[in-house]
Amino acid sequence: MSKKYLSDIEIAQQANMLPVADIAKEWGILDDELEMYGKYKAKISLDIFNRLQDRPDGKLVLVTAINPTPAGEGKSTTTVGLGQALNKIGKKACIALREPSLGPVFGVKGGAAGGGYAQVVPMEDINLHFTGDMHAITTAHNLLSAAIDNHIHQGNALNIDLNQIVWKRVLDMNDRALREVIVALGPKSNGVARQDGFMITVASEVMAALCLATSLMDLKERFGRMIVAYSNEGKAITAADLNVHGAMTMLMKDAIKPNIVQTLENTPALIHGGPFANIAHGCNTIMATKLGLKLGEYLVTEAGFGADLGAEKFLDIKCRYGNLKPAAVVVVATIRALKMHGGVAKNNLGEENVEALQNGFVNLQKQVENIKKYNLPVMVAVNKFVSDTDAEVNKLIEMCQAAGVEVALNECWEKGGEGGAEMAQTLVNLIDSQESNFKPIYEVEATIEDKVNSIVTKIYGGEGVIFTPKAKKEMKRLVELGLDKLPICMAKTQYSLSDDPTLLGAPKGFTVTVREVRVSAGAGFIVCLTGDIMTMPGLPKVPAAERMDIDSDGNISGLF
Amino acid sequence: MSKKYLSDIEIAQQANMLPVADIAKEWGILDDELEMYGKYKAKISLDIFNRLQDRPDGKLVLVTAINPTPAGEGKSTTTVGLGQALNKIGKKACIALREPSLGPVFGVKGGAAGGGYAQVVPMEDINLHFTGDMHAITTAHNLLSAAIDNHIHQGNALNIDLNQIVWKRVLDMNDRALREVIVALGPKSNGVARQDGFMITVASEVMAALCLATSLMDLKERFGRMIVAYSNEGKAITAADLNVHGAMTMLMKDAIKPNIVQTLENTPALIHGGPFANIAHGCNTIMATKLGLKLGEYLVTEAGFGADLGAEKFLDIKCRYGNLKPAAVVVVATIRALKMHGGVAKNNLGEENVEALQNGFVNLQKQVENIKKYNLPVMVAVNKFVSDTDAEVNKLIEMCQAAGVEVALNECWEKGGEGGAEMAQTLVNLIDSQESNFKPIYEVEATIEDKVNSIVTKIYGGEGVIFTPKAKKEMKRLVELGLDKLPICMAKTQYSLSDDPTLLGAPKGFTVTVREVRVSAGAGFIVCLTGDIMTMPGLPKVPAAERMDIDSDGNISGLF
Repeated sequence: MSKKYLSDIEIAQQANMLPVADIAKEWGILDDELEMYGKYKAKISLDIFNRLQDRPDGKLVLVTAINPTPAGEGKSTTTVGLGQALNKIGKKACIALREPSLGPVFGVKGGAAGGGYAQVVPMEDINLHFTGDMHAITTAHNLLSAAIDNHIHQGNALNIDLNQIVWKRVLDMNDRALREVIVALGPKSNGVARQDGFMITVASEVMAALCLATSLMDLKERFGRMIVAYSNEGKAITAADLNVHGAMTMLMKDAIKPNIVQTLENTPALIHGGPFANIAHGCNTIMATKLGLKLGEYLVTEAGFGADLGAEKFLDIKCRYGNLKPAAVVVVATIRALKMHGGVAKNNLGEENVEALQNGFVNLQKQVENIKKYNLPVMVAVNKFVSDTDAEVNKLIEMCQAAGVEVALNECWEKGGEGGAEMAQTLVNLIDSQESNFKPIYEVEATIEDKVNSIVTKIYGGEGVIFTPKAKKEMKRLVELGLDKLPICMAKTQYSLSDDPTLLGAPKGFTVTVREVRVSAGAGFIVCLTGDIMTMPGLPKVPAAERMDIDSDGNISGLF
Repeated sequence: MSKKYLSDIEIAQQANMLPVADIAKEWGILDDELEMYGKYKAKISLDIFNRLQDRPDGKLVLVTAINPTPAGEGKSTTTVGLGQALNKIGKKACIALREPSLGPVFGVKGGAAGGGYAQVVPMEDINLHFTGDMHAITTAHNLLSAAIDNHIHQGNALNIDLNQIVWKRVLDMNDRALREVIVALGPKSNGVARQDGFMITVASEVMAALCLATSLMDLKERFGRMIVAYSNEGKAITAADLNVHGAMTMLMKDAIKPNIVQTLENTPALIHGGPFANIAHGCNTIMATKLGLKLGEYLVTEAGFGADLGAEKFLDIKCRYGNLKPAAVVVVATIRALKMHGGVAKNNLGEENVEALQNGFVNLQKQVENIKKYNLPVMVAVNKFVSDTDAEVNKLIEMCQAAGVEVALNECWEKGGEGGAEMAQTLVNLIDSQESNFKPIYEVEATIEDKVNSIVTKIYGGEGVIFTPKAKKEMKRLVELGLDKLPICMAKTQYSLSDDPTLLGAPKGFTVTVREVRVSAGAGFIVCLTGDIMTMPGLPKVPAAERMDIDSDGNISGLF
């Protein structure tokens, strides 16, 4: 316990980075396909897909987790560490991650890009403006917003119903004061006053569409289909109706290209797109995932929140649109978090408690069983903390084995790729020995009710679904608009398998209430909201921004 | 007249660009000082200033113009063309320009980066996200905005008066609906409701501060001094009081580095910063200008609007803060615009009208005389249009010669640098033969009244200044705050030497009314507003965005 650990930023700043052009070259990316952003960041031209189209795909590995607790799981750390570890044991593996949003950086947590000796670098750049993708999304989104109000101001030829404008504005900032606003006050020349609101950029449908697009023209079509409002006659008004989807796509011409950086061990990391994991699907772009599959034997990626949300959406939405077939899924757990699922309070996590671990194991077990329902090979990675006792570790391994699931320890946080060698080897063996017969949990052709019911009963372990009258009304409209045959995107608390954040472990006998239904017709899914979902965070009493600084030599402090 | 001219975009797309790294190398920029953004854009590390500190500066040339008319003057085209022309006649010359804002691109005019054979490239990139500077400014600005509302929400320890918040939010979009808004509606958790508004990003004081900063630490100090509100006790509340100036500076760590691109003839072009020319000073960054002076024998730059606003602010604000000493000033005029100053309507400009030209010449003459008041060598560049007749051209040259001012034709739009050889040689001779004894038009130590009076009487040719009671009240406060000894930034119509946009030519006998005074304490100037100044443009009936598109190969159309 007396061992001194360096902070994430100290480790990151000591990183032995290679020029990203060298890494790209080693991984078979041509010089002409690389657009540098300084020495350590680059974008990769979409031309590469044509060149590599006949190359067989590598194996797709999804890293997901138990339901998150305040104890932390280390999903990103495991994803990065697993990528490093696979290379350590002689396999060629890339990783694909979501881009962080600027807003939260200034809020509570500061920046994030893995942790310990399993991080992606350059950390500062990735957490600040990176290659400008978020800004491009903000701009494309707000161009459409401006076009809506301009259309109304110029005579409202489309007869847009001011009470049925569903397209808000966005900003990449935690700014609660923008959640609910009135715009266009003042003289007539300022437009027609109405209620509006801002979301944080990652909640934009532009972001979700980017992440599900398979080409620039596919993105343009998705933009064109995006519904911004309904007319007084009940017609859906789209971005194409406002004729700005071309300009929006033009604004995304660089943002659509996957970004390449590296891990602390010079493993290529494709960091591209980062949609909300509640009102959107929470995975990096399909294009980054597909590119990684072309570059390596393995592509390790992650999905937001726990497996009930993240993996479900990854498998039922992203894999469907991307025609992706995962080779295996890794479910991350920590002993600390399982103890919380077993009833231990955060302050008591330091004490050994095998019984609580046993009680909390049901959450992990349920998530593992869920993955098996997709006919996918699955393993558990135990992200080891220095405070875990041998009795606890042994108990967890024993329970996994009793449940018939492969399990391995992950010590990448402390030891980098080397600390994940066992995990990586377990994964390789799993993939080599078990075939993936991936199949989504529902058919898109089913009714909205049936699709949601499948998710709730098969994945969450609930009894059924209650739709509010408001939700039912919108479902009826979606049927009328012919938009009901889309995948479902559940917006639910991440903390529980149910829609009640206080129900830890593996609750039973509950029903889920869908209080609101919305369509993201461009992204291509139907959002079902349960409970309140915050799409614009606020800043805390003392924002992380207050501790951040830069000195005359450009050294940043306080970002993490 | 039957000659077929290519459009600006056609010419730009046929450009024979060199990798910008090659240009940088040729101009003595080290590899390590260059941060690439693709092949044709780069940022230059501020380290270069240390390395080159002992190298003598080149000669600073300002390109300015007569008061703009709908006929156009071609100031940017002349700036770019003059840079190309100087190189053509064997001199080493760089140019420094302002960065375009995204908002107007989607509005009426589309993109802009010079014209004809005097353009900077890559045009599309420069006009879209470029290297992300605008986005960094938007983010830094809005972080401060969020910090203000968060401070109030968290208890308002600084006792900020909600009716005296002077810091708006910004967005880089033409969006009239955001001019006047109410924020923080809804439940208490959304903050304290108040009236607010958005400006376009280029109107942000963050932009003005960036453009006047001489180092990263100078920028941080400027950010710290920015006044966001006044307390109920009348105290000025600054960004430093909210403790986010460090984080704001961190967000600007790359934006502060000058951008290098090239002209159609591979002349280095530093494009960096682009503040409003009314409520701010309308010039590119001091750092880009200083860098250009280190790189070449000549640095050609421009200032916004006509000389009464642009040159005045360049000389009295920018040169003062940057300790810059111009070698000469070029005043751009077109025969068409002078005819409008002489009373011709826009539709009749095609007809020869020597008399109107003679009548309108007074505007050019006044601007030239003004430059002489700064003890600066001055010449006239006539931006030639194909419709200009020989009689008109000869008359203009004759009038210039009679007024004792050097004059040269500029045919760079049609012929590139070669078309400006005479202009370039005239400039070189002027600089070699006439010494610059640059002296600002007023002393900063004078009272606000005296400073404004100097500008109005000496530069505008007016009789005097009227301050409204509101303006007087604010001037009193600035004296009390010790903020009155700053340079003046006039916010006035660009169309007339007076504050009445309909008074063309060289009006006399008028007074100027200052209706409002504001301090930009971080940028470091006092803004005096005459008439209404729009800081958030709107979109027209059919926005330019509607004609923009991109195809599957990434080819952009409709941007210009």
